[in-house]
Amino acid sequence: MTIYDISEKAGVSIATVSRVLNGSQSVSEKTRQKVLDVIEQCGYTPNAFARGLGLNTMKTIGIMCADSSDLYLAKAVYYIEQKLRGHGYDSLLSCTGYDLEAKEYSMNLLITKKVDGIILVGSNFVYERETDNRYIAEAAAQVPVMVLNAAMDTPNVYSIMSDDYTSMYNATREMLAGGIRDILYFYNSRSYSGRKKLAGFQAAMEEQLLPGIAPSVEFYRGSHEDVHAMVRHLKAVRDKGKSFHGVIAADDTLGLAAVKYAAEMGYRVPEEFSVIGYNNSMLACCCQPELTSIDNKLETLCEHLISTLLGILEGKEMPKKTVFSGEIVRRGTTRSLAPEQTKLS
Amino acid sequence: MTIYDISEKAGVSIATVSRVLNGSQSVSEKTRQKVLDVIEQCGYTPNAFARGLGLNTMKTIGIMCADSSDLYLAKAVYYIEQKLRGHGYDSLLSCTGYDLEAKEYSMNLLITKKVDGIILVGSNFVYERETDNRYIAEAAAQVPVMVLNAAMDTPNVYSIMSDDYTSMYNATREMLAGGIRDILYFYNSRSYSGRKKLAGFQAAMEEQLLPGIAPSVEFYRGSHEDVHAMVRHLKAVRDKGKSFHGVIAADDTLGLAAVKYAAEMGYRVPEEFSVIGYNNSMLACCCQPELTSIDNKLETLCEHLISTLLGILEGKEMPKKTVFSGEIVRRGTTRSLAPEQTKLS
Repeated sequence: MTIYDISEKAGVSIATVSRVLNGSQSVSEKTRQKVLDVIEQCGYTPNAFARGLGLNTMKTIGIMCADSSDLYLAKAVYYIEQKLRGHGYDSLLSCTGYDLEAKEYSMNLLITKKVDGIILVGSNFVYERETDNRYIAEAAAQVPVMVLNAAMDTPNVYSIMSDDYTSMYNATREMLAGGIRDILYFYNSRSYSGRKKLAGFQAAMEEQLLPGIAPSVEFYRGSHEDVHAMVRHLKAVRDKGKSFHGVIAADDTLGLAAVKYAAEMGYRVPEEFSVIGYNNSMLACCCQPELTSIDNKLETLCEHLISTLLGILEGKEMPKKTVFSGEIVRRGTTRSLAPEQTKLS
Repeated sequence: MTIYDISEKAGVSIATVSRVLNGSQSVSEKTRQKVLDVIEQCGYTPNAFARGLGLNTMKTIGIMCADSSDLYLAKAVYYIEQKLRGHGYDSLLSCTGYDLEAKEYSMNLLITKKVDGIILVGSNFVYERETDNRYIAEAAAQVPVMVLNAAMDTPNVYSIMSDDYTSMYNATREMLAGGIRDILYFYNSRSYSGRKKLAGFQAAMEEQLLPGIAPSVEFYRGSHEDVHAMVRHLKAVRDKGKSFHGVIAADDTLGLAAVKYAAEMGYRVPEEFSVIGYNNSMLACCCQPELTSIDNKLETLCEHLISTLLGILEGKEMPKKTVFSGEIVRRGTTRSLAPEQTKLS
């Protein structure tokens, strides 16, 4: 028995059931009674129901994160926990790894801990195949599920994301405008956001390349913090005869490896070799020259994710999907262009 | 009513009560019965008791970490969760911040979630004042508490640590042996392990300095990832007239900032300026030259922490305190010495 069944039996929308469960005032007394009757007939007593009656709410949010040692995900978890605490909510984090079964398992674990909502940190929770996302839909039948950096068309699932496609598209156009044509895209994730970034790069390149010539992309499979292995990967690409004088990297660690690669090859950066990273993390300031990187406004995303979640828990109507723009933060690994040059016509 | 009261009333040790609660076979039937009688008389039904009877065990370990966006702590959490999962245990992480009240609160939250044990990741949970550590002792009366990188003389609290004092002492002696006398110690934490590191540096310096001359130390208060602010701090030290040609840093981020500082001041590294960091994190490979750093064997520590915890949960006698040695990983920020030089007499 789920929130769906109740909505169907009562002949009202899921949002209405949710508002009744959350004790919202914006439901007519007649509708409220109809929903409560169905709930009583069905013996339906989910966490949300208890919470709606002010009983048994733990004021605890479950957070799922694939890998807490990933700099970007760790930062997101940090912002989210901080903001939840600021609003009087506790949080429990479960680090799932990248395996679907482990994710399903962790999701159930959090549900048994009677959390009031679940936050999925990172787009690797949303798979390309719809059936692989069933675990999210099932959880969402019990509590609201917030997804950072990925979107899903499922009731009670809310997305907060950065426009990764456009950010990568703009970054690629900017490097092209700087006169670099042989750009390599260097990435290590095929997550939802990973796919959007790749598509943005490809779209910008395909506008400039001759028909039939594919943009250069390289997928790195190794440890996400083994900078030396990334440098070796780039050297191997070169040794296979593929020439490149620019790297657009799907995260800052890959970007930092490209800066190291350029130094080892004797390229002057940015005069002979350009690099753009992604996330604008602390790593961008660790290399020499410092790394131009895309700021995807992680703190803003986390802030909106929490305010959206709190709105839902209060029974308010909240947007299903919120998208923010990213921004290029220019440092020493790209040539400075006149403002009119940064926009390719 | 705690495990202490039971041990007292039954006239047996806490370890014996724990073994009975954990269903261990190594307790005589007579003793077992005595303990169970006391428990029955007192109406004592902690989680551990239920677990001892094979009831209601959640196979879930609570993990507390002050700040999941700290590279070192995040890595520790990652290893711990991975190893717990490998042994069929779930984990719930609570990120507490650095505030004592928030730590007490999170501890209670995890206890109400019926965890089988609690792991404190990082030495900032253990305070200098004994009374500030009461929250740990109280939790330990209910479930075993494991502390990474700090020690406490409290029943049911187990410590796994690296010998930070000796590592820092050796690193300092090695830099002195390289001919650098004006070494600055750059640190940002007064945690248990932070105090040990500082003491190791001071001990090595005081052996070499004239009596009455204090070793140079600088405490950095800013964000733990703002490399530019750290560089500014070092410049301000110099501007105040304090000269230094070597930096020993309490973590790799501070060390990386020292490498950047040296580059901005025009020092050649390592010929004119040496740096040693701590943690041997991925950051050590991010700067140019790469950073000599102390490897405190985090993965080994986490592995032993988990095997110790699992032993305790099985009712085995386990060591209260396990200490591993660290190791200097030499890279480009220190001069290479002949093997006999690395040991100062």
